[in-house]
Amino acid sequence: MKVVIIGSGAAGLSTASNIRKYDEDIEITVITRESFIAYSPCAIPYVLCGKVDCFEDIVMHKPEDYLEKNINIVINAEVFEVSSRENKLKYNFNNGYLKVVKELSYDYLVIASGATSFIPPIEGTHLNGVFKIRTIEVGFKIKEWAEKNHNAVVVGAGLIGLETAYGLKEMGLNVIVTEMLPQIIPRSLDPDMASIVRQYMENEGLQVILGNPIEEIIGDKRVEKAIIGEEVLNADMVIMATGIRPQIKLAKMAGCDIGRWAILVNEKMQTSVPNIYAVGDCVEVYDAITGQNTQSPLGTTAVRQGKIAAKNIVGMSAEFRPVLNAMVSKIGQLEFGAVGSTKSWAVHNGMEVITGKSKALTKARYYPGAKTIDVKMICTLNGRIIGCQIIAEERVAERIDTMSLAIAKDVTCSELAAMEFSYAHPVSMVIDPIILAAEDACWKLKRLKKM
Amino acid sequence: MKVVIIGSGAAGLSTASNIRKYDEDIEITVITRESFIAYSPCAIPYVLCGKVDCFEDIVMHKPEDYLEKNINIVINAEVFEVSSRENKLKYNFNNGYLKVVKELSYDYLVIASGATSFIPPIEGTHLNGVFKIRTIEVGFKIKEWAEKNHNAVVVGAGLIGLETAYGLKEMGLNVIVTEMLPQIIPRSLDPDMASIVRQYMENEGLQVILGNPIEEIIGDKRVEKAIIGEEVLNADMVIMATGIRPQIKLAKMAGCDIGRWAILVNEKMQTSVPNIYAVGDCVEVYDAITGQNTQSPLGTTAVRQGKIAAKNIVGMSAEFRPVLNAMVSKIGQLEFGAVGSTKSWAVHNGMEVITGKSKALTKARYYPGAKTIDVKMICTLNGRIIGCQIIAEERVAERIDTMSLAIAKDVTCSELAAMEFSYAHPVSMVIDPIILAAEDACWKLKRLKKM
Repeated sequence: MKVVIIGSGAAGLSTASNIRKYDEDIEITVITRESFIAYSPCAIPYVLCGKVDCFEDIVMHKPEDYLEKNINIVINAEVFEVSSRENKLKYNFNNGYLKVVKELSYDYLVIASGATSFIPPIEGTHLNGVFKIRTIEVGFKIKEWAEKNHNAVVVGAGLIGLETAYGLKEMGLNVIVTEMLPQIIPRSLDPDMASIVRQYMENEGLQVILGNPIEEIIGDKRVEKAIIGEEVLNADMVIMATGIRPQIKLAKMAGCDIGRWAILVNEKMQTSVPNIYAVGDCVEVYDAITGQNTQSPLGTTAVRQGKIAAKNIVGMSAEFRPVLNAMVSKIGQLEFGAVGSTKSWAVHNGMEVITGKSKALTKARYYPGAKTIDVKMICTLNGRIIGCQIIAEERVAERIDTMSLAIAKDVTCSELAAMEFSYAHPVSMVIDPIILAAEDACWKLKRLKKM
Repeated sequence: MKVVIIGSGAAGLSTASNIRKYDEDIEITVITRESFIAYSPCAIPYVLCGKVDCFEDIVMHKPEDYLEKNINIVINAEVFEVSSRENKLKYNFNNGYLKVVKELSYDYLVIASGATSFIPPIEGTHLNGVFKIRTIEVGFKIKEWAEKNHNAVVVGAGLIGLETAYGLKEMGLNVIVTEMLPQIIPRSLDPDMASIVRQYMENEGLQVILGNPIEEIIGDKRVEKAIIGEEVLNADMVIMATGIRPQIKLAKMAGCDIGRWAILVNEKMQTSVPNIYAVGDCVEVYDAITGQNTQSPLGTTAVRQGKIAAKNIVGMSAEFRPVLNAMVSKIGQLEFGAVGSTKSWAVHNGMEVITGKSKALTKARYYPGAKTIDVKMICTLNGRIIGCQIIAEERVAERIDTMSLAIAKDVTCSELAAMEFSYAHPVSMVIDPIILAAEDACWKLKRLKKM
């Protein structure tokens, strides 16, 4: 049996490795436009800020490593035609000297084509010094450019924008982050929690401009200024972190159904064409809270989807669950994470919710080095937890995981408030901040019932 | 209404504070033999090792602080008589000059009398330089004595023993830890996991002797040698960390039913005498895994029991759930924790189990400062998780909490393996070590079914 996988990101390589884990004989070929594989694009900001020494460090495997597992990886190759009737695809292959066209047949095709940066239709995005972060090659160029310049404007205050902004700040640049919406990290955090992160960023020396879209980038060959709302900002470089768009061209060509944004798949990660699977940033997933389709462009989602697709391809049965989009980030010393729905998103979807909050410490009060921790929990009026956001200078990620499990298992705030957590002075409080937030939610529900 | 609480540890004060939280009018009196209240005895080792500056720091409240909440605390007072027929008790009160006997009546009595150190019946435990850690006063004395001496023997390699041993080592003493059983931390860790902690201790310069009980302490007025099995060890001081015994004398006097070790209570924390409640180290609890009675001498258990007792006393209904004994400790840089049953304990109780293990990292491989993490998960043959042990130099506590929730919600290893965890390079791996251990457990179950 032959499986061809288009794309060498987390989703594509996870599919390949998992197929091999479950089956020794299947012929696996991964085709990718990139020349580096198995690196973590989200780690680029950490190279900029100096936490990770160099880009080479974030490349975890070479194509040869996969050959040892009997997985064939074709780099610098662009698939331009898929025929699902003939179970064949064609790709351009650049062998260093010239482009040749090659053909490949498959029994199963896995589309892991990822996403590209979305660039708003404004003037000046073609200028030198304007970058969109996506691949390691762009990472190299940003670093090189930043080393010779002083003023950076980062457009978009989502995770990638903020992490990159911090990286550039650590390189010594003056950095302004701009966001069209009135808050940072709008997808994962409510405004009250986002403002804690924004204050941290500002204290660290980043300037943040909210509520204004980028209007134009000005310059002669290279960028000189960026116009944000009515402000004209000096800029030697502009990073466009304005979102992503799933790459669906090949899926369309193959006749796969497309949803609102991306490729439609069932819980087996199978498209509408039975022997074509799709995984990663190029597919739509089911949101566990709202019950609607959504996107989940996270490395963890990609890896989990690759595993599910692999299992189904080798004939084991496995289903991808609706997503909670559990995420975490660390910028400077600040760690923040979220899972499930924000309050804003729940309200936007017509849900009636209450929130429980706590502000506490990460260790016993008297233990040196205890940090402030903020927890916000979102619950329905029958007490079911549907979301949680946590910010602190340590120990956020695993608390998000606890909350991910709680939400997945339909735990109520009163159930969580009675839960048994571990405790030792150097690592926690005798009543965990999560428990305190759950208790606060219980009180609010009780008061609401009395009204 | 009058509530009298005997004992000012975590259980007693949690009961008092929670009653006041739910009811402004109830008259609350706490009677305690101690002169310091609201301190954390488990923090004593951290004062010894210098992490916390002084004993004063670990005292979180004074009796006056409780008076502000209209909670009356009587210190240096020993209850010697309880009459449940008359709803009265008598206590000796030392006013600094002389002992006087006082009487107090109650509508509800809460026994939070805690536990005392168990000292095995051997020769020499009366000598100067032999200590049992329990109260802050003993902490003072240990520190004073240790400052003038060189060789310490700590008897008992449970948490208190190990933490104290490390504290004394940090003070510059030569420390030998001895344990009767063939492993350290026998209650919470299986031998394979315990040996990781032991190796860390030994690398840090502690000597550990396993499988030998203390036979005798030798000395003229002050301790000079300790005989452990057949070895004679030089010792300027001996710390007896040989376990605890619940204090049940007053409960017996009041006619409360006593179980195998401690006071019997129902899920409301009520004893067999309807208006007497009992909480903390002096009660028996129900083990969620084995279904048998057990002890849970943990600060978190005490705090949660106090809340349940308080709610029931004020007329709200609340039930204390069977315990999983979620615990964590940090010694030096090493954090280790456990929840639910060990494999040894499950097998001892006649359960058939398999284990899933993982050895991974706490951060992305290329991120500086990533630490090794070891996870061991215990599952029944139908996949239900019943226990977990985790060791790493960071981020153990919250993972234990995740596993506590997983066990409480009857999650299976295959369900957990599909769970959505958060990920960012500086704080986690794209596939969490917990997920890897759950996957390992799934494989083992699958292999078992094929056999």
